[in-house]
Amino acid sequence: MKLASLKHGRDGKLVVVSKDLSSYADAGDIAPTMQAALDNWAEAEPKLKALYEMLNDGEVKSQPFDQAQAHSPLPRAYQWADGSAYINHVELVRKARDAVVPESFYHDPLMYQGGSDDFLPPRADIPLGDVKWGCDMEGEVACITDDVPMGVSSEEAAKHIKLLVVLNDVSLRGLIPGELAKGFGFFQSKPATAFSPVAITPDELGDAWNDSLIHLPLKVDYNGEPFGRAQVEDDATFNLADLVAHAAKTRNLGAGCIIGSGTISNKGEDGGPGKPVAEGGRGYSCIAEIRMIETIYDGEAKTRFMRPGDTVKIWMDDADGNSIFGEIDQTVVEA
Amino acid sequence: MKLASLKHGRDGKLVVVSKDLSSYADAGDIAPTMQAALDNWAEAEPKLKALYEMLNDGEVKSQPFDQAQAHSPLPRAYQWADGSAYINHVELVRKARDAVVPESFYHDPLMYQGGSDDFLPPRADIPLGDVKWGCDMEGEVACITDDVPMGVSSEEAAKHIKLLVVLNDVSLRGLIPGELAKGFGFFQSKPATAFSPVAITPDELGDAWNDSLIHLPLKVDYNGEPFGRAQVEDDATFNLADLVAHAAKTRNLGAGCIIGSGTISNKGEDGGPGKPVAEGGRGYSCIAEIRMIETIYDGEAKTRFMRPGDTVKIWMDDADGNSIFGEIDQTVVEA
Repeated sequence: MKLASLKHGRDGKLVVVSKDLSSYADAGDIAPTMQAALDNWAEAEPKLKALYEMLNDGEVKSQPFDQAQAHSPLPRAYQWADGSAYINHVELVRKARDAVVPESFYHDPLMYQGGSDDFLPPRADIPLGDVKWGCDMEGEVACITDDVPMGVSSEEAAKHIKLLVVLNDVSLRGLIPGELAKGFGFFQSKPATAFSPVAITPDELGDAWNDSLIHLPLKVDYNGEPFGRAQVEDDATFNLADLVAHAAKTRNLGAGCIIGSGTISNKGEDGGPGKPVAEGGRGYSCIAEIRMIETIYDGEAKTRFMRPGDTVKIWMDDADGNSIFGEIDQTVVEA
Repeated sequence: MKLASLKHGRDGKLVVVSKDLSSYADAGDIAPTMQAALDNWAEAEPKLKALYEMLNDGEVKSQPFDQAQAHSPLPRAYQWADGSAYINHVELVRKARDAVVPESFYHDPLMYQGGSDDFLPPRADIPLGDVKWGCDMEGEVACITDDVPMGVSSEEAAKHIKLLVVLNDVSLRGLIPGELAKGFGFFQSKPATAFSPVAITPDELGDAWNDSLIHLPLKVDYNGEPFGRAQVEDDATFNLADLVAHAAKTRNLGAGCIIGSGTISNKGEDGGPGKPVAEGGRGYSCIAEIRMIETIYDGEAKTRFMRPGDTVKIWMDDADGNSIFGEIDQTVVEA
């Protein structure tokens, strides 16, 4: 099933979107908003699925779906926590500065809490206050849960994954070293995040959803050129259920909690740093990574961070080349 | 004006509470929930204030207010970010381990993002999974804002402070060193927070609200004994408006955003570590602080962290000894 929130008030208007993303049906009779549906998921889900079937069969009144009219599936959320499941990304950061990766990183996930009160719509500009802040994209996937009890196991956590999304975890690289040095983690260095126009139930992926991982490439284009084609299931030290369980270790998670994967990052074929897409590799889901690889090979980074006018597109196609979540498509602008 | 959310569904039921905390009037005709009121504050505030006047004058139907029936004012919120305005606390931590406080801490606030999807009610038990997690209270104050635009100054930020609360930022000291060592800040070490039964508008404090600081002591009792009487306006390196501006530097804050002060912590009369209440001092708003002072003076901490059965009460009285926000009153229990 595919769901979206059309722009409307603070929380959007819940609609069911057809499998081919061409049309939508109003779901207001089932739940006015995505959050309301998640608050009452056991009751709402079968009704939404029935409507989805009817929409795909042309048996219900529908209207053309315009992705530009969609907000992030949850325009604001009660929790947005982002893991760092792809240790390859961390290994590259450390390698670029000749530091080792602590052994604990391979069994204890990194996770930060993000701002969730003001997400960007998927086609919204990225407001940048200062080019020196070092604006970067981070292409990721995330799950949205129902209520998760404190202390849940990974196995149990998997059952609480109700929806999946793709996202751009906008990051301000220039502010990160100073914030991390203070010891409290990211805050100003993680401005508003943008999510895909559409959220899907995991069954929508068929065999491409397995072991709480999506088995497809995440596509990132930067300024109109292919930049990242990382395979989501490869090199994932943790799956989404592991990350949900980590988040719930000492507290309950409320319905509508979003837990992200961190930047999708693959090793190269030889186990070393991956190559750019233009050189036949899978490329990168953020600029920081190509800069690290430039630093490792050339002694210094040459690719600059994003400036006003730069564009990023993030999406995922199924095996037949059809867009699953719609496209995040953003342009950096001066704030 | 005093507001509360009676336990009801996920978001509570908005009521106006009398100045003496004895009675409440249903505010459902104005806004069903605290969040709904904040989403539309300019319109809701004058109506709620009018109802508050009528309630205090006995001119509206009211019912007895039972603090045990109140949830946290926002039972869940879209943002909960906690600063660390009392550098004295940081100085003590560092002094206990012979480390220096970076100069930047005096002009660049520490702030972490907390979980906001599942707050504890003010009289709820604190579920503890493991005594080794080192459960501690942190007595703090916080403000709740309306919509705050990105890049706002401290002066402008002050105008966005709409409500004030007192809170217990429950902390798991045993998990903090490991999490901070990972570099991403607190996550599992900050379980669910509890807020005071009542939120107030700043004007309720009269002269005790000045320069975005509350000028009153925060009272903390631990296992029935006075533990903390720290003066909120003393030793505050940053006021609440400074912390709001810090949070909004690179992104907008949405209505209902909660920004906390960090543990209230006063220096002693001689500028050194403060004395316990029993020795005539102002005491401490968390156990970690008395442990640091024990470490500084005796070489080791002797006060243990909280265990099942331990109780903590946090509140604030006005100059006449009347409770302003009601009382947080919690008991640690085995999860």
